[in-house]
Amino acid sequence: MYPNWILQRAYLTPLRKALAYKNQSWTFQELNELSIKRARQLVGIGIQQGDRIAIMGPSKPELVMMMYACMHLQCEMVMLNRRLSPEELAYQLEDSEAVTVLIADEDIEKLPPETAHYLFSSIENGGEGELTIEKEWPLDQTTTIMYTSGTTGFPKGVRQTVGNHQASATASVLNIGLQPQDVWLCAVPLFHISGFSILVRSLLYGNQVYLYDQFDAEAISQNIIDGEVTHMSVVAVTLERILHTLEQRNMKASPHFKLMLAGGGPVPVDYLARAHSLNLAVAQTYGMTETSSQTATLASEDAMQKIGSAGKPLFFNQIKIADPNDKGEGEICIRGPHVTPGYIGRFAHKNATIDGWLHTGDIGCLDEDGYLYVIDRRADLIISGGENIYPAEIENVLLTHPAVKEAGVCGVDDEQWGQVPIAFLVLNEPVSVEQLQAFCLQKLAKYKMPKEIIFTDSLPRNGADKLLRRKLLQ
Amino acid sequence: MYPNWILQRAYLTPLRKALAYKNQSWTFQELNELSIKRARQLVGIGIQQGDRIAIMGPSKPELVMMMYACMHLQCEMVMLNRRLSPEELAYQLEDSEAVTVLIADEDIEKLPPETAHYLFSSIENGGEGELTIEKEWPLDQTTTIMYTSGTTGFPKGVRQTVGNHQASATASVLNIGLQPQDVWLCAVPLFHISGFSILVRSLLYGNQVYLYDQFDAEAISQNIIDGEVTHMSVVAVTLERILHTLEQRNMKASPHFKLMLAGGGPVPVDYLARAHSLNLAVAQTYGMTETSSQTATLASEDAMQKIGSAGKPLFFNQIKIADPNDKGEGEICIRGPHVTPGYIGRFAHKNATIDGWLHTGDIGCLDEDGYLYVIDRRADLIISGGENIYPAEIENVLLTHPAVKEAGVCGVDDEQWGQVPIAFLVLNEPVSVEQLQAFCLQKLAKYKMPKEIIFTDSLPRNGADKLLRRKLLQ
Repeated sequence: MYPNWILQRAYLTPLRKALAYKNQSWTFQELNELSIKRARQLVGIGIQQGDRIAIMGPSKPELVMMMYACMHLQCEMVMLNRRLSPEELAYQLEDSEAVTVLIADEDIEKLPPETAHYLFSSIENGGEGELTIEKEWPLDQTTTIMYTSGTTGFPKGVRQTVGNHQASATASVLNIGLQPQDVWLCAVPLFHISGFSILVRSLLYGNQVYLYDQFDAEAISQNIIDGEVTHMSVVAVTLERILHTLEQRNMKASPHFKLMLAGGGPVPVDYLARAHSLNLAVAQTYGMTETSSQTATLASEDAMQKIGSAGKPLFFNQIKIADPNDKGEGEICIRGPHVTPGYIGRFAHKNATIDGWLHTGDIGCLDEDGYLYVIDRRADLIISGGENIYPAEIENVLLTHPAVKEAGVCGVDDEQWGQVPIAFLVLNEPVSVEQLQAFCLQKLAKYKMPKEIIFTDSLPRNGADKLLRRKLLQ
Repeated sequence: MYPNWILQRAYLTPLRKALAYKNQSWTFQELNELSIKRARQLVGIGIQQGDRIAIMGPSKPELVMMMYACMHLQCEMVMLNRRLSPEELAYQLEDSEAVTVLIADEDIEKLPPETAHYLFSSIENGGEGELTIEKEWPLDQTTTIMYTSGTTGFPKGVRQTVGNHQASATASVLNIGLQPQDVWLCAVPLFHISGFSILVRSLLYGNQVYLYDQFDAEAISQNIIDGEVTHMSVVAVTLERILHTLEQRNMKASPHFKLMLAGGGPVPVDYLARAHSLNLAVAQTYGMTETSSQTATLASEDAMQKIGSAGKPLFFNQIKIADPNDKGEGEICIRGPHVTPGYIGRFAHKNATIDGWLHTGDIGCLDEDGYLYVIDRRADLIISGGENIYPAEIENVLLTHPAVKEAGVCGVDDEQWGQVPIAFLVLNEPVSVEQLQAFCLQKLAKYKMPKEIIFTDSLPRNGADKLLRRKLLQ
């Protein structure tokens, strides 16, 4: 049994600043009291301790409060990605069997029609129920459920337990260090593990989170110049925008700023060189929903001599390459207390690990010093602006259109987003690109929309008729 | 399963300095290679993976190497206190059933006669056996066994597992922070948890240990002035000697020096004030062998407004007061992943915890902000220079002398050591103080020797004839 993080942190350092957003801020004590009140209000609307509920909203303090309330209630939180289409959300709600959706007022239009839900405002204005808050949480309690796709294109609900999140946060601190005055800027979505893990670290470390509800290159660059923040999680595209802003303004990062943690795919080498000349340390990471954030990190001081590497595992983690070829390349496998125990819903029967090893599907190798290089992403994964896009998901949608006979999707390089998806189609009957785009827009998140749709006579397949996505571009 | 700390640290940061002693130093890679060689040499003399072995020597690099070799071999290390008498050591060797003693050449005279042993030199010069080092350790594997006394005076062998040590180190880092360039000065014995926990932290944190084989106030003060070290573990008596040295030399601590962790009993208030004016941050701690080092720590910034407090629990720990009286005072109980799973030998059957709570026997209370105050030590515990002395242990020895009919031991304040034991005796037949002292010297560690022996007609007892040690001084 481990302490309820929110209670324990409020007990240990009640008066430290926990959260800042625009001109407001909250101490750990205030966050705790507000979230307990919110938890009582959740009881008031009938939510019970341990319920599985879905939650959606922009990255604002109200969402943090609501998440902490759910954690006090030991609810399993299905973290809905507010960029998804109503159809995608409907799938997750059906698969997860969440009892209801707690939703920010401004996001109500995004919900599938007739979804059971409670608006944040109605909860915040509602009555309070009776509640005894547990002081301890078991390690195997599911804190969050995040959906991630895969080879089949059917998203899987990944469980992340108290133990997973704790192990991730403690392994991370052993790598990047900690000082009480550290402030972590969060401009990544709280529904992704990249954002939620910042909250977990804040509770465990006693550090402040400086929250943005959207990426604001000007304001964030100013924070970095002023040294108001010490850490930040970025993806390549947001890193570039910060570099660009600093360069334009001819300013450097404050010496108080310590580290950019760059996840969600590789960072181009020239970004690293530019960051270096702006006094901005960048640590590249490799991680995924199944590993509750980072599993490997490249120390900033190694960035230039190990270009392209994702670094070494964090202290409690292990990485191995399964069935390596003669160049040492094989499937990246991960083991450690941060690895998910498994899935929910239709994939609940699927083992997440084999003998404790998570087989990522990604292809990589370890160099002679043990540094990890990720060579090829699982299932032809497309990473666009830090979001994972699985070709099969888009293909599945396209194939439901009556005019489409065959569909193949792959990523192409894009200066702004890193990669974007494009689709190759074999048709049954004539249809316009615009018609297909309108069709997709109903069913897919915008960032998953194929940037280009190309009609062709046939798709490249192997002898077993398996689509060869890598050959689509040829 | 968690990584073998030594292998993992050598993999992650091979070239960082791990250990310094006098003019020598070793990187983590070097420590790993040397300790693997030493592990093979242990196999060469017949030690097997998982054996329970006893180990004794001064705090020198050879001892660190030997301990790490034992850890590679997953041996259970019975940590012998080299200040104990041969009789005391014989008890621990018999109780623990250690297969052999690994002993530093210079300590051989301390061993009871005819004890099976191997000298460090003979191991270091011996041949190597075959060994496959396990890359992972189970959390419940016993790393160390340390003997501690109690109410009965019979020392109990306390198990400290991989999980205990890990939880202690990670909880500590969440409290005091971490930077890669931190250097921890170790001048406390490695056979005590205060010293061994510095090694564990070094492996988990990747920090350097600056090792002393004895307390050298001049040299240590110079390290603190120069900022060559950032952290140090002290007891009140060693803290005072450093304060005195700095004051004499009219020097202050370097701004690079971060924290003194003060354990082994309370620190007098005027030491804190003196430390403050020397720029020396002091964090008072409360912990014990059963909690694998600190369980509560008073932040340096709270030291003056919470005078006498041992602070708040570390993040993963909980403290409660059992059966408090109307002033809120009761037995201090501790819970968390750092608490021992239990004992070995004749106390193996004894439960260490009740419903997960370790009942310390110490009396204390929590103030309205949740700060712990230790009011009275368990079993009339005497703390002398940071060493625990249990009156019953000394009484048991005195009672084996034919002239002694009744014995009562208690602590008196001592300017140098904090406390020292004195003995009150009722005699059967005449005997001199000198004769009794010579008798005790054979059976007791020097620091346990009664500073004074007083003959009396009767000892204070309650109705049930139980000795009232606190009334001895009256």
